[in-house]
Amino acid sequence: MDVETVLHMKGGLGETSYAQNSSIQKKFTDGMKHVVIDAAIDAYLSETPRCFKMADLGCSSGTNALSLIGDIVNAIDERCHEKTRQVPQFMVFLNDLPGNDFNSIFISFSDFGSRLKNVRRRDEFHSVFMAGVPGSFYGRLFPSNSLHFIHSSHSLHWLSQVPPGIFNEEGKSMNSRKIYISKTSPPSIAKAYHQQFQKDFGSFLKSRSEELVSEGRMALIMSGRDTKEPCNKMTTLLWELLARSLSIMVAQGEIGGEDLELYNAPFYGPSLREIEYEVLREGSFTVEYLKIFKDKVGSGDAKKDGAALATAIRAIQESMLCHYIGREAIDRLFHIYSELLSEVMQKEEIMAVYAIVVLRRSP
Amino acid sequence: MDVETVLHMKGGLGETSYAQNSSIQKKFTDGMKHVVIDAAIDAYLSETPRCFKMADLGCSSGTNALSLIGDIVNAIDERCHEKTRQVPQFMVFLNDLPGNDFNSIFISFSDFGSRLKNVRRRDEFHSVFMAGVPGSFYGRLFPSNSLHFIHSSHSLHWLSQVPPGIFNEEGKSMNSRKIYISKTSPPSIAKAYHQQFQKDFGSFLKSRSEELVSEGRMALIMSGRDTKEPCNKMTTLLWELLARSLSIMVAQGEIGGEDLELYNAPFYGPSLREIEYEVLREGSFTVEYLKIFKDKVGSGDAKKDGAALATAIRAIQESMLCHYIGREAIDRLFHIYSELLSEVMQKEEIMAVYAIVVLRRSP
Repeated sequence: MDVETVLHMKGGLGETSYAQNSSIQKKFTDGMKHVVIDAAIDAYLSETPRCFKMADLGCSSGTNALSLIGDIVNAIDERCHEKTRQVPQFMVFLNDLPGNDFNSIFISFSDFGSRLKNVRRRDEFHSVFMAGVPGSFYGRLFPSNSLHFIHSSHSLHWLSQVPPGIFNEEGKSMNSRKIYISKTSPPSIAKAYHQQFQKDFGSFLKSRSEELVSEGRMALIMSGRDTKEPCNKMTTLLWELLARSLSIMVAQGEIGGEDLELYNAPFYGPSLREIEYEVLREGSFTVEYLKIFKDKVGSGDAKKDGAALATAIRAIQESMLCHYIGREAIDRLFHIYSELLSEVMQKEEIMAVYAIVVLRRSP
Repeated sequence: MDVETVLHMKGGLGETSYAQNSSIQKKFTDGMKHVVIDAAIDAYLSETPRCFKMADLGCSSGTNALSLIGDIVNAIDERCHEKTRQVPQFMVFLNDLPGNDFNSIFISFSDFGSRLKNVRRRDEFHSVFMAGVPGSFYGRLFPSNSLHFIHSSHSLHWLSQVPPGIFNEEGKSMNSRKIYISKTSPPSIAKAYHQQFQKDFGSFLKSRSEELVSEGRMALIMSGRDTKEPCNKMTTLLWELLARSLSIMVAQGEIGGEDLELYNAPFYGPSLREIEYEVLREGSFTVEYLKIFKDKVGSGDAKKDGAALATAIRAIQESMLCHYIGREAIDRLFHIYSELLSEVMQKEEIMAVYAIVVLRRSP
């Protein structure tokens, strides 16, 4: 599977779209957004450019991205007002893979523009210009020294590919019917995943270091873990249950087992130490902030929460799973998954774990 | 009708899409592209920036836009090679109204990138970065002083709205069932169209003058006419025949006449003098090149040519006409239109008339 071609959040505004099912991501972004906004203000104050240029990498097609951008624009606006300094113009680049539904973001731009104007307090000239940039953030996306601030939420845990190291010489998965690092996975699996993360995150840092101006800031929020061990229950549980749902369908003859042998999630939830190590190794950035955030998922109603979580994961995973098991089997798969999730949530709390890191481009 | 919301070339890659039906535009762009490329080289040489920033305004969703951009990149690359100067990076902004099918352009970016690399002769670092910018070019789209070169092909003849001056106090069209300036139109119609062109083209020039760096260049290709009179057969014939097709459907009771009273094309084909007058009036640009290009449309096979031309006009007009006569009536309308076109093309040549203008931003 070519992840760059296949991976995208479910487009449009329908019931199973990412736009309608990204409230979990929004809740976390809201909880951490002061860190992101502060980093953006720092980036602005370092250079006080006449046009502040920022990028949201992996913006997807919901309203989360535009909401945070609105907050950043308003915060910088306010700061300039306090200091009786002229408000800059803003150039905002929204990036995601080419298969992302950019059309629906673009149609919402005009609403966003008018909403922004309503919250401004004065008439002095300032403007927010927007552009969409399709492409993988594991390569270059922008000209050299062209950005002051980069933000990425809920995207960097997606690897550029399924780690090649999990397959044996015959091209078969050595991950014993699991789809991510699991207790029953041989140690080579965790190693393969970690190596892929190192390669990808290293490429990400290198590309961004060329695109950011000196003293530019980068605020990243991604799935992570608070343990040294790669197999951490909180990070892996959702994948365990998805693997179990797939196994149930194989056992009942609803899907073939062979194709599935090829499917492993192109995902990695790093520890803070792993993140820090790559930053040091790449060498262009200093760490300004590095922390794990945890919060429980759900409202307490296990049946409802299981269904909501299943739909949320579906909006993220559907494009990739379709590639393996076909479009017809998707409804059934997520029905089983929803039931397994509800079952678990009746017994215990499911926690979401995110790493947040703010980096400063060294001069 | 809110033109900004409704107008867009037909998206996707289907049989009636703009992508499949823009060969007439391509033929003209090919004929005039040396003028555009020379203007881009001049813009580059004026400042020799490390990153050359250019925009295609009204790019639509076919391959025409990317093809010309490839030519510009290669021409500047070659010029740098001759002068043993380092090739710049390129930042390309593709703009169109928010309803345009950006998704299909974005998916073709990666092909474009690889095609470009194949024609390069050496490995030295240079890159072409791309972004999509949704919005009306009758307002601001980019930060101040942020572009070196602006190009627009086959878009500026679209007005921001149907001229309000063609309606009487009861809101009825005074254009006697015509949909553009016609021999039977009262003089107030041509005046209303000309005023709307002045307002729109003036806003266009003002916005661009703020976005272009000093000495930046702008190359514009749009429908035009080579006569002083606003009713010029070559510019108006296609609209005459479309109006006649609509009248046939009204006469046969296939569509209602009332709604149609509201439909006039938000289009204007200016003369060179009218273009020049607005440039002088706005005051930020000097004219470097100004010319009318004419070429016959079609291969000589009237039946085939009529059908091809009808499909081409359909790709452009479908979104607006649907708004008035409904989606069901469209096939029938363009069937009648195709026959009328073939009939005319059997008797005479249809010419397409374009104005091309190159402007330089004064220091």
